Amino acid sequence: MQQLSTRHLLGIENLSPADIGLIFETADNFKAVLNRPIKKVPSLRDITIANVFFENSTRTKLSFELAEKRLSADVVNFASGSSSVKKGETLIDTVNNILAMKVDMVVLRHSSPGAPHFLSRHIQASIVNAGDGTHEHPTQALLDAFSIREKLGEVAGKKVAIIGDILHSRVALSNIFCLQKLGAEVMVCGPATLLPRYIRELGVQVEHDVFQALQWCDVANVLRIQLERQQIKYFPSLREYSLYYGINKKLLNRLDKEIVIMHPGPINRGVELNSDVADSEHSIILQQVENGVAIRMAVLYLLAGQK
Amino acid sequence: MQQLSTRHLLGIENLSPADIGLIFETADNFKAVLNRPIKKVPSLRDITIANVFFENSTRTKLSFELAEKRLSADVVNFASGSSSVKKGETLIDTVNNILAMKVDMVVLRHSSPGAPHFLSRHIQASIVNAGDGTHEHPTQALLDAFSIREKLGEVAGKKVAIIGDILHSRVALSNIFCLQKLGAEVMVCGPATLLPRYIRELGVQVEHDVFQALQWCDVANVLRIQLERQQIKYFPSLREYSLYYGINKKLLNRLDKEIVIMHPGPINRGVELNSDVADSEHSIILQQVENGVAIRMAVLYLLAGQK
Amino acid sequence: MQQLSTRHLLGIENLSPADIGLIFETADNFKAVLNRPIKKVPSLRDITIANVFFENSTRTKLSFELAEKRLSADVVNFASGSSSVKKGETLIDTVNNILAMKVDMVVLRHSSPGAPHFLSRHIQASIVNAGDGTHEHPTQALLDAFSIREKLGEVAGKKVAIIGDILHSRVALSNIFCLQKLGAEVMVCGPATLLPRYIRELGVQVEHDVFQALQWCDVANVLRIQLERQQIKYFPSLREYSLYYGINKKLLNRLDKEIVIMHPGPINRGVELNSDVADSEHSIILQQVENGVAIRMAVLYLLAGQK
Repeated sequence: MQQLSTRHLLGIENLSPADIGLIFETADNFKAVLNRPIKKVPSLRDITIANVFFENSTRTKLSFELAEKRLSADVVNFASGSSSVKKGETLIDTVNNILAMKVDMVVLRHSSPGAPHFLSRHIQASIVNAGDGTHEHPTQALLDAFSIREKLGEVAGKKVAIIGDILHSRVALSNIFCLQKLGAEVMVCGPATLLPRYIRELGVQVEHDVFQALQWCDVANVLRIQLERQQIKYFPSLREYSLYYGINKKLLNRLDKEIVIMHPGPINRGVELNSDVADSEHSIILQQVENGVAIRMAVLYLLAGQK
Repeated sequence: MQQLSTRHLLGIENLSPADIGLIFETADNFKAVLNRPIKKVPSLRDITIANVFFENSTRTKLSFELAEKRLSADVVNFASGSSSVKKGETLIDTVNNILAMKVDMVVLRHSSPGAPHFLSRHIQASIVNAGDGTHEHPTQALLDAFSIREKLGEVAGKKVAIIGDILHSRVALSNIFCLQKLGAEVMVCGPATLLPRYIRELGVQVEHDVFQALQWCDVANVLRIQLERQQIKYFPSLREYSLYYGINKKLLNRLDKEIVIMHPGPINRGVELNSDVADSEHSIILQQVENGVAIRMAVLYLLAGQK
Repeated sequence: MQQLSTRHLLGIENLSPADIGLIFETADNFKAVLNRPIKKVPSLRDITIANVFFENSTRTKLSFELAEKRLSADVVNFASGSSSVKKGETLIDTVNNILAMKVDMVVLRHSSPGAPHFLSRHIQASIVNAGDGTHEHPTQALLDAFSIREKLGEVAGKKVAIIGDILHSRVALSNIFCLQKLGAEVMVCGPATLLPRYIRELGVQVEHDVFQALQWCDVANVLRIQLERQQIKYFPSLREYSLYYGINKKLLNRLDKEIVIMHPGPINRGVELNSDVADSEHSIILQQVENGVAIRMAVLYLLAGQK
């Protein structure tokens, strides 16, 4: 069996293009499995995986859980709400306790950037980063790039615009790393207040006009306005954002070209994306969700074989 | 295999008496399975079922989960507390996302009457209504009628009084539909403030005196006073309700006849039902709970065969 | 198969030394299983176990859940947060409802001392006490004694000091019973305000000076200061506690002898235990966690064979 260059999936930053290629080929196989009547494989029958989520999550947790169950792994869920964390335990103690119970892999979501990296230096067992604060969300970036490859044949040479709240998004950073490693050109587009200051250092183009961005790109990855993260009182308000950056059918019609629309979900319909776009033939949003399970199966399967 | 006339179980209203009969015969078989030492069957081994509960629930959720596991289905749970719903996602988007992960059936509890019906028009996959607001709760009505059939031999011709808070109860409406389709006579009994205005249009008898209702019926289905739903400040208070409508041994002794007592749970002991009745030989309350698992296994099994 | 003298595990108080010996021998076998690549056995394949937790818990619940899954039992979780308990249902009704769904065993955590004992007199099905208020926590005491036996060869004749908040600890009481039944000498050590008044009636030595206690013992079981339970405003404050009772490397170095350090977790690092002790070669804290799964597998396995 081919091997990844790493024991953990901490971020896209430390994956090689060959790693990403291997994940994609493995995911191709699992996607075929998911479309059979029998969607389960016995691959990880003797593996126990703990989903350790210190932040609420619906779709990411559900997607990992389904991936684990379809690989026949034993799954235990650990949520911070019902946890020793409130009793003042350290992250390392919490995870070491879980591992002492003979858990083989940890899928970790944490609000602090770098938490999985820190942990990987102190524990035995593979760690999969399921989102660390506003830093990385590697499986999301992998499923996004996999979906582009599926739709357009390849990622290399394609132009991808990431539109919206880049500042508060862990999806953006992982996507930039992943797309660049695969040879795509990346642009970010949003109001200046929602772009991080270091953005140009990442080798991406920056555009403030959404129509220009759409004109330029083959694929628009429209991010969610993270209402619950955003404390910004000034520009842009939700109405202003929707007015200047919201993507609707009328705007797409002015383009007169093919374009692929992606969104990591959950959608704020009528804010960053109108229903006439989200539900149109341009959108591959539900394919992204479907591919998420296949990508996560591939990551877990490859890491489990990595000893 | 015989088939139901529907792909979904949205309510009793759209089931035929033949559908109900098929569900009962199937549940007979599963009830026999539940009383074997080996309570599991491989019937739904390759089916994934999502329990999507937007309202808290204990016994209904547990009953569905046990039914699913004993059919060997893969089960994922989605609760609104930890969900994207809080992030402003629409119901259709939430459920479509779950389905894109190749989920075959959705068991839905939602606070809005009609939510599962609405959803069934917009998604692929079978939906089982596990309670929609104050509207329907079809599996509860099926297990209630199944329990009467088990206790009294048949439902046709029997007199059933539904006693208590009819207005706020989804159990009442589903029970009325189900019992009438099976040929029972139905009476509702409660204070006028807890009866819906349209009640007479449903073809049921209305009685305000609980002793008269008990005199009349073969079976009394005593509903829960839903403390958490009720905002009514005036008549009846809890003490008044208990005084005028609470059912106790002394009241039953005055009847001098056989009577079957049912309750959908959880019981407010000392309010609508005294312990000397709830725990007496008249009560089939725990049989109802047991039958609930068999009925839900039957419904899930039949819908899974329905393509 | 050898049998326990009881159908329930309510506390250590009603176990015989032979029962404890049988549990340990069974746990030896399961510990060997947990160290194989294939950690699962089919022993309880046709058993359904409900984890009924009326109090938050992380490690105990996770440990039971892993034990159950590795025995191939079907597992359902019931937490008070999402439950009928809020609707005013009694404990017996809640548990009887769960059992009516053909559940074979109940693992119960409850805030009221005696809740599992009370329940055991009213229901069919084996009950495992996973902690009842400040009363008993029998599986913790079993895993603690099992860990001492593993480390030191046997428990009989060993000197064990239980140090810290004895008053609010269910771990202390179960440990005292278990160690005494196995022939160990037990001392408790802590400030007078954290010792129960009846403590001398239990046949233990009492010491207020932690250095004296450490000098005396072979094993120090250091309890957690239960911040969330403690309402005490006066002596000792957390800083005072840490100053007079906190155990650090410097203190151990003064002993000039071998000592084993245990802790039931979660650790308040820097309060009752410093990291230079918790992570040292004296500590068997993570072995305790590992042994917890084996002990719980043994208890569940033996109770299931008890009919």
